[in-house]
Amino acid sequence: MAILSDAATQVLVPLAAVVGIAFAVAQWVLVSRVKLSPSARAGARDKDVLGDSLIEEEEGLNDHNVVVRCAEIQNAIAEGATSFLFTEYQYVGIFMSIFAVVIFVFLGSVEGFSTRSHPCTYSKDKECKPALFNALFSTVSFLLGAITSVVSGFLGMKIATYANARTTLEARKGVGKAFITAFRSGTVMGFLLASNGLLVLYIAINLFKLYYGDDWEGLFESITGYGLGGSSMALFGRVGGGIYTKAADVGADLVGKVERNIPEDDPRNPAVIADNVGDNVGDIAGMGSDLFGSYAESSCAALVVASISSFGVNHDFTGMCYPLLVSSVGIIVCLITTLFATDIFEVKAVKEIEPALKKQLIISTALMTVGIALISWLALPAKFTIFNFGEQKEVSNWGLFLCVAIGLWAGLIIGYVTEYYTSNAYSPVQDVADACRTGAATNVIFGLALGYKSVIIPIFAIAVGIYVSFTIAAMYGIAVAALGMLSTIATGLSIDAYGPISDNAGGIAEMAGMSHRIRERTDALDAAGNTTAAIGKGFAIGSAALVSLALFGAFVSRAGVKVVDVLSPKVIIGLVVGAMLPYWFSAMTMKSVGKAALEMVEEVRRQFNTIPGLMEGTGKPDYANCVKISTDASIKQMIPPGALVMLTPLVVGTFFGVQTLSGVLAGALVSGVQVAISASNTGGAWDNAKKYIEAGASEHARALGPKGSDCHKAAVIGDTIGDPLKDTSGPSLNILIKLMAVESLVFAPFFATHGGILFKLF
Amino acid sequence: MAILSDAATQVLVPLAAVVGIAFAVAQWVLVSRVKLSPSARAGARDKDVLGDSLIEEEEGLNDHNVVVRCAEIQNAIAEGATSFLFTEYQYVGIFMSIFAVVIFVFLGSVEGFSTRSHPCTYSKDKECKPALFNALFSTVSFLLGAITSVVSGFLGMKIATYANARTTLEARKGVGKAFITAFRSGTVMGFLLASNGLLVLYIAINLFKLYYGDDWEGLFESITGYGLGGSSMALFGRVGGGIYTKAADVGADLVGKVERNIPEDDPRNPAVIADNVGDNVGDIAGMGSDLFGSYAESSCAALVVASISSFGVNHDFTGMCYPLLVSSVGIIVCLITTLFATDIFEVKAVKEIEPALKKQLIISTALMTVGIALISWLALPAKFTIFNFGEQKEVSNWGLFLCVAIGLWAGLIIGYVTEYYTSNAYSPVQDVADACRTGAATNVIFGLALGYKSVIIPIFAIAVGIYVSFTIAAMYGIAVAALGMLSTIATGLSIDAYGPISDNAGGIAEMAGMSHRIRERTDALDAAGNTTAAIGKGFAIGSAALVSLALFGAFVSRAGVKVVDVLSPKVIIGLVVGAMLPYWFSAMTMKSVGKAALEMVEEVRRQFNTIPGLMEGTGKPDYANCVKISTDASIKQMIPPGALVMLTPLVVGTFFGVQTLSGVLAGALVSGVQVAISASNTGGAWDNAKKYIEAGASEHARALGPKGSDCHKAAVIGDTIGDPLKDTSGPSLNILIKLMAVESLVFAPFFATHGGILFKLF
Repeated sequence: MAILSDAATQVLVPLAAVVGIAFAVAQWVLVSRVKLSPSARAGARDKDVLGDSLIEEEEGLNDHNVVVRCAEIQNAIAEGATSFLFTEYQYVGIFMSIFAVVIFVFLGSVEGFSTRSHPCTYSKDKECKPALFNALFSTVSFLLGAITSVVSGFLGMKIATYANARTTLEARKGVGKAFITAFRSGTVMGFLLASNGLLVLYIAINLFKLYYGDDWEGLFESITGYGLGGSSMALFGRVGGGIYTKAADVGADLVGKVERNIPEDDPRNPAVIADNVGDNVGDIAGMGSDLFGSYAESSCAALVVASISSFGVNHDFTGMCYPLLVSSVGIIVCLITTLFATDIFEVKAVKEIEPALKKQLIISTALMTVGIALISWLALPAKFTIFNFGEQKEVSNWGLFLCVAIGLWAGLIIGYVTEYYTSNAYSPVQDVADACRTGAATNVIFGLALGYKSVIIPIFAIAVGIYVSFTIAAMYGIAVAALGMLSTIATGLSIDAYGPISDNAGGIAEMAGMSHRIRERTDALDAAGNTTAAIGKGFAIGSAALVSLALFGAFVSRAGVKVVDVLSPKVIIGLVVGAMLPYWFSAMTMKSVGKAALEMVEEVRRQFNTIPGLMEGTGKPDYANCVKISTDASIKQMIPPGALVMLTPLVVGTFFGVQTLSGVLAGALVSGVQVAISASNTGGAWDNAKKYIEAGASEHARALGPKGSDCHKAAVIGDTIGDPLKDTSGPSLNILIKLMAVESLVFAPFFATHGGILFKLF
Repeated sequence: MAILSDAATQVLVPLAAVVGIAFAVAQWVLVSRVKLSPSARAGARDKDVLGDSLIEEEEGLNDHNVVVRCAEIQNAIAEGATSFLFTEYQYVGIFMSIFAVVIFVFLGSVEGFSTRSHPCTYSKDKECKPALFNALFSTVSFLLGAITSVVSGFLGMKIATYANARTTLEARKGVGKAFITAFRSGTVMGFLLASNGLLVLYIAINLFKLYYGDDWEGLFESITGYGLGGSSMALFGRVGGGIYTKAADVGADLVGKVERNIPEDDPRNPAVIADNVGDNVGDIAGMGSDLFGSYAESSCAALVVASISSFGVNHDFTGMCYPLLVSSVGIIVCLITTLFATDIFEVKAVKEIEPALKKQLIISTALMTVGIALISWLALPAKFTIFNFGEQKEVSNWGLFLCVAIGLWAGLIIGYVTEYYTSNAYSPVQDVADACRTGAATNVIFGLALGYKSVIIPIFAIAVGIYVSFTIAAMYGIAVAALGMLSTIATGLSIDAYGPISDNAGGIAEMAGMSHRIRERTDALDAAGNTTAAIGKGFAIGSAALVSLALFGAFVSRAGVKVVDVLSPKVIIGLVVGAMLPYWFSAMTMKSVGKAALEMVEEVRRQFNTIPGLMEGTGKPDYANCVKISTDASIKQMIPPGALVMLTPLVVGTFFGVQTLSGVLAGALVSGVQVAISASNTGGAWDNAKKYIEAGASEHARALGPKGSDCHKAAVIGDTIGDPLKDTSGPSLNILIKLMAVESLVFAPFFATHGGILFKLF
């Protein structure tokens, strides 16, 4: 048996989660020290204490007014975001309630709502709890997952809108101060989310255990509802938030930058508040829910397989909790990693920001490798067996270490490749910028080609990860590889959340009319954030690929499928149609953004044409109307793509059965991951190509610029096209592939019993 | 046994091919009656005979000069196209020779170059011819396929460049006359290609039979080289031609239309000849080779499976030749269909053109359904068995009829859906045009969304086709379904070739300085041609999906694979990497077009800036330099994507083995078909959205126009982005998926014997 006792596991996991939450609170306290109320004369006091001079004071600007203005704007953004999320949660809440009933009815019907125990699926000689109770507990964990996801997204948004104006104000004291504020705020979100997800899951398992006892199979099958709930919320969060933010962004840019030649985030632009709200509901809340979903799903996939492997058979609780232990170690490792950015090293200049963020990734990955080795040695028996589609496969603890580690490092490779293709420090983006010389068309052609090309290495990294972990430990290997990639999620989320916070900080600086030098500092923070956002998306996609494969494996195991043969007509049609789904889904989301953006453009144009003195800065734009357009559009438009994803597994499973559904899942996975990576990177590259021309940091860049030149206009068109690709379609596709897989897993007993009606009829 | 005797089959097949060729020659004679030499005063004589008045004479223009000028331009285009194709064939010739050696060596090595007979793969009790001779005959048929493909493409180009100026001249007499000239020229190509492909295949089979006797397995395995040769040539033709034409087109448009505000095909534009040459080498020669490849491959796939089914076992020659008989019937049906456009009905007005072309599709499909029923009844036994991955499956002749028919009708559905999404008569394209109101960015977003959406119905049509034909007759069903879709290839190619001919006719009218009314007529021809071109691409992709699936089936049969299990790591990594290949390939081709277009833009700009009087029409542009840029770029840039496609199966098969290769093929198929359809339709939609605004046929369209308005400029940007998507990447992807499959099939014995080195080592 393992070195770590069950009792120690029962202490370690919640302890790590609580430490993570405490750390998040501590960071929040540090951020809250930056005062937003001018009466406290915070700036002056800070000056005395830190010996730092405030730029605004140097320039003779009225400090008092600036702080008041920043606080006002922050409030407007926070209110907009809160009210949107509440509206969104209301609609999604109705959907979730209905879906909860569906889960209960479908799963309950598996044994005809009988309350009798039945022989377990895998150990036929054992009695397992009745299907009706599995249905009940699945429904409960589904709702639990959904609520945790809502809380994660909402808290993230709250922290981000709490931090953005504070970052702006700190930027007056220097780029290092601003960086640390934005970064600390990011860590609050990162650690809250990771720890919260782990804690809720841990508590749920222990509560469910009171009923299930040592029926691990039933327990962990019910727990998969947690992943489904988390991911369903994430889908609506990502799609709704994505449409919201990009409708506002595209609308604001098309009229503001292209037609009216006013800068980004100019307070005269009526869509500017909606745009900033969008960053918080899309990039922060949506992404938070998304990564929480991935984390919950990969844990569930691993736990389900563990329960039917030797861990479950031998009632080895510590072994079964290995996925949770990996996440616990991850929280501690990320905590240490964070100190490298906030305490051990200090960012003093603009050029140190990006390396500091990238260093976070390397440090966390390196430390985590040691952490995984340690926990694999402590928590796992030297030899154990893993369920592998009907047979048991022997695995060693070092083999499993390798699986987790390969996932972790594949994530790092994907992150770095993403950075290479989307940062304007390297030739790919510079080539795209260069193509702007001949206009928007060549810019777009080069950008699309870049996105396609950026798929190659991540796919090979994923393929190698799959092959190695699959060969070592079957689908359990894939699941823990996904967990490995997500084990540094706290750090990943921190630097991910840092981006939109800096973006907002820049917007607030512009809107508050702060000096050009402040804006330059926030722009530098934002540029680094753009790259880290792209890296975060790379992680999200890479982990989604592994997670959904692991869920797929758990699904076929649970549905009793032993072979998914491409040479069978049922599978091949599933494969073809599944590969089409990402396109169908993208068509909907792209068109939604396009349509909402058109409405936004009309409204912004109308305001510029009808509100007197708006361009001159004497009239006040009607921000609320633009917020309403984004809200209405996203609420209305998130339903069809959401329904497509949620209904497909149900329809396919019920009418065509598990074989075709397996094909659909595999097809959607292999096709969706390509579309997602290329869409995200194309969009990121266009964004940074535009920023490259705007910043004019090299001779080449200056030859293409300045702002307002033909080249720059072409670059803005590319950036605008990229918006829905990188922030709506691309990232939602992760959820498409994960969600369909986890839904299939949850409904697997139903499909296996009652599915395939159509083929049964003919 | 079947009603049709073997002797009757031996007569019918070549007879149909000869009739097809004779028909093509007859159509050519009719086209050649339009005289291009002014000395004969053809125009005047025609006037006397036909009582039709020439517009040019009405308008008092000098008839003599116009004809001379048209002839000159035609010569320039024909010379450019011929010289490019010769250059291309030289390079490809070297490659083909090397690859022929590779085939011989690889296949010869299967039995260690032994000249001894060996037991057959499927009937172990029979002796089959030695592998060395299979290698030899495969190599011969590979070269035969390549040469037939070259001849097909080259003849098509010759006919097209022979007909374009004649169409222009006929346009003086009326739109009906011009239509019939363009259409007849298209039929010359369509029938030559279909008949030629059938005849060569038929002769090859009969010659090979002299050696193979009744070793059908060996015979038809060797014949698959024919498909490989045809498709390899097609790959280079499509990619090389596609880069050529789009580099010239994009380059010409970016400077001419966008910067200089001169119309399309203006003779002052230095890239205009290269652009017109490109239509002939890309859309005509490339597409001809492509569809010939599809035809050859689906025949080969069907023949290979037939040889190991009861047809082969019972030496039922007629049954085995069923695929050839279907094609023979197709030629006759298409011949009758053509008469409906040329003789039975007459096109008199512009608005009758598109219906006339669409009617061709419906008539040929309806007639062909009867034809298939007839030949299925005549040529097939009432019951027979088909090889189905290790076992024999019983099939009836009516079942097989259903397979062919479902392919045929699925093709029609795909054609019509393509038309719906790319013709500006319907709302999807009109919505895209409408999005131009807010600029190029929304135009592009809407266009991409349209392309994604247009995938849905074709994929369902393909999926239903696959399911039905697979269920009825396993992989043989898929192969004959593909043949069904291609059975009306003569008609499909005719209306496909009609497009570029009309396009060129318009270009010649513009360059020869003919009146605006002539240009309007050729524009009307061209607009109809745009839609039919999109339909043709839809057919090409749909058939490619079925063909490659059939080839995939033949490959796994030949490689002795019984199950391709997605739940095996070797397969799943193949699936993921295979799905990535279309992106890698598209990245290369898109970037190639972008780079070549940049060069072209620089050259065109240089000429406008340095040649005195060029804009005023007094200076003469240097057309040759632009032709050279396109030629050099396409020759150089076609090699990497070509190598990617040709080497992937070899590398994967040799190092990773048949399981992973199966995964790669399936992955490339399911992902590639989506990328191809969406790319083609997005491009087609942008093109027609632009034409919609230009034509201004409705109030809505006029509100967006006229030419040169902001809306129109946004539409031109979309059109330019779409060029490489619809004419380079998209259509080449068909070949990617087909070619990798047929190559795997040819090399299957080698991979099965020596493949998977890497997995064997570790």
